[in-house]
Amino acid sequence: MSDALLDLEPATIPSGRRVLDLVRAGLDGLSPELLARVAWSALAEPGDPVASRLVAELGPVEALAALASRSETALERFRPRLGRLDLARILDETGACGARVVTPDDREWPRGLDDLQAPPHCLWVRGPADLASTARRSVAVVGARAATAYGESVAADLGAGLAERDVTVVSGGAFGIDAAAHRGVLAVDGTTVAVLAGGVDRPYPAAHHRLLGHVADTGALVSEMPPGSTSLRSRFLLRNRLIATMTLGTVVVEAGRRSGSRNTAGTAAAHHRVVLAMPGPITSIASVGCHEMIRSGMAQLVTDAAEIVELIGVMGEDLAPETPVPTRAGDGLEGADRRVFEALPRRRACDVETLSVAAGESEATVRAALARLELHGHARRTDSGWRVGDGG
Amino acid sequence: MSDALLDLEPATIPSGRRVLDLVRAGLDGLSPELLARVAWSALAEPGDPVASRLVAELGPVEALAALASRSETALERFRPRLGRLDLARILDETGACGARVVTPDDREWPRGLDDLQAPPHCLWVRGPADLASTARRSVAVVGARAATAYGESVAADLGAGLAERDVTVVSGGAFGIDAAAHRGVLAVDGTTVAVLAGGVDRPYPAAHHRLLGHVADTGALVSEMPPGSTSLRSRFLLRNRLIATMTLGTVVVEAGRRSGSRNTAGTAAAHHRVVLAMPGPITSIASVGCHEMIRSGMAQLVTDAAEIVELIGVMGEDLAPETPVPTRAGDGLEGADRRVFEALPRRRACDVETLSVAAGESEATVRAALARLELHGHARRTDSGWRVGDGG
Repeated sequence: MSDALLDLEPATIPSGRRVLDLVRAGLDGLSPELLARVAWSALAEPGDPVASRLVAELGPVEALAALASRSETALERFRPRLGRLDLARILDETGACGARVVTPDDREWPRGLDDLQAPPHCLWVRGPADLASTARRSVAVVGARAATAYGESVAADLGAGLAERDVTVVSGGAFGIDAAAHRGVLAVDGTTVAVLAGGVDRPYPAAHHRLLGHVADTGALVSEMPPGSTSLRSRFLLRNRLIATMTLGTVVVEAGRRSGSRNTAGTAAAHHRVVLAMPGPITSIASVGCHEMIRSGMAQLVTDAAEIVELIGVMGEDLAPETPVPTRAGDGLEGADRRVFEALPRRRACDVETLSVAAGESEATVRAALARLELHGHARRTDSGWRVGDGG
Repeated sequence: MSDALLDLEPATIPSGRRVLDLVRAGLDGLSPELLARVAWSALAEPGDPVASRLVAELGPVEALAALASRSETALERFRPRLGRLDLARILDETGACGARVVTPDDREWPRGLDDLQAPPHCLWVRGPADLASTARRSVAVVGARAATAYGESVAADLGAGLAERDVTVVSGGAFGIDAAAHRGVLAVDGTTVAVLAGGVDRPYPAAHHRLLGHVADTGALVSEMPPGSTSLRSRFLLRNRLIATMTLGTVVVEAGRRSGSRNTAGTAAAHHRVVLAMPGPITSIASVGCHEMIRSGMAQLVTDAAEIVELIGVMGEDLAPETPVPTRAGDGLEGADRRVFEALPRRRACDVETLSVAAGESEATVRAALARLELHGHARRTDSGWRVGDGG
């Protein structure tokens, strides 16, 4: 924290005093800390470094007191909103949409968020899911809004596969990959969390009103912005940092060369989360970003939910199953046995001398090999000589 | 070499003597060394370690003399063929199909083959391409016979893209990826080499008679087996070691979980060649092998010819071009400028106070940002206030 910020200069800012008085009085019987965090969420844009440092240094209530009594330039940006801040209305709207406020002091706070330099002051949560416990076994599934049919199908399968492995899928509720992942989870009655850039009372995009309603009914809608906040473009990028850090890893399903998903993946990597990407056809521009992340070593390639769970390593209990390899006739044969087996005709039979030439082995070796091959059904002795057996 | 192999025991083997006499006499005016290598190619299966050690230790002619005069068990495997060896016929068939014999003593020998523990004794080459110089700038493109339409299209594009960059494509002439890669090269009049498991006089598979004829007319068909040899399964795997080592790197386009292409890639990796794989839809079993190779770190992911040429690093002159990133309105704006820009309405205009609340910045900051934004056409001043400018 710079000296300028600590250098208290008395000033009279009536709106700041009014808010501070409400906070200290414990409006609606809520703690001053919680009320101050709600205030900061409304005053500062997500990720604001000045607000974050002030709250970290002084605590939310004293930070508000500083804002009300000091006049540094660095604090000017909060004043336009301070003059209009209506705590009572925010709390009313929170209750009206059935949301709760979760602060870093609550057991339900997803601890991964503490890794951020400027974590949210608090979260609005709408839905039955317990955020802390779902986050402990969660993966972010993100990707392009302009997804292809392939990408949406892959994301839906992935959502279902993760849900079936008891993993919570966290995404952003957007068109394309996000929505497909949420839908895949809902289809198998799993738990999914949508982190929104605006308020949890106004699910965005509007076309996903029903989808996000289902998410709220069974999982959770989450936002660091108070109810009533709109989804600005800069807030989407800042929202991504929550998705990246409240989860154990981020999977990118489709991403163009320039994409918000790569921003999420970058934040996940910066905070030592597992970063994964699913490949696609090289002919699809929707997979270019995924392929670039894999090429550059930023992301590991994955192809299904089992591999993801293994790499995320939840409780070390998950190992992707080995896919069985099909067997073929003659598999397991080596050296002379193999060469003699390959030299055996399938339809007519032939003699040992012919086999010896064809296989490039001595007649003695061929005879010994034939004895072994016959034993395992790979070779068959007929009246006219040797041929491939029924077991081979 | 084991002592047993060096322990000379006199023996009388008339067929061995007959071959040795022909070799030493210089049949058809050819050198004894070349004739002895032709003989060994016919006597031993590709990659035979005993023949290889004997030739490396004694030279091809003296190795033949040892075979004619010694009676160790390790040499027994060569005798059935020795009794039937017809050098004159092999040379006749070589001439008849327009092939030439290339030995390690020739300038045209691809030096990469020397890395093998059991290199070919010699090569039969049919076609105008100079093997040594094409190999110095070559890539193996291999993959599944049971390729998908996607895989064949990718392989053909890759073949053409590599040929346009003056890179020789080496493959195996098989159905699926191999054939598509060869065809892609031929379509742009490039040079491609097919390494066959059988003789160069009998292109395999028969259905590729015309395709391999075109390859022979413009590039080269190559085999370590004499004309007349058939394509046994074990010879395909051994043929793959030539494809893997005569080139600078191997690209796998599609490969199932179990695949000869992975064998080629494994050999390339073992000999420190670059190993690359192209991804595909995760829903396609034809791409499972490629994805596994990338996951395990055996192969690097590539998506086009430019990336391959860059990784192969031919003469350090090839760099994949940066694909241009499209720009969007407001790109390049940061901090307050960015937030104010995003807060600007697109249709109606608004005043500085409204912008100040929306952007979360002081009115002074908003005014300064607007001045900068106006200068660059991002903001426009109207009679009723500010709105987004024509420049973005």
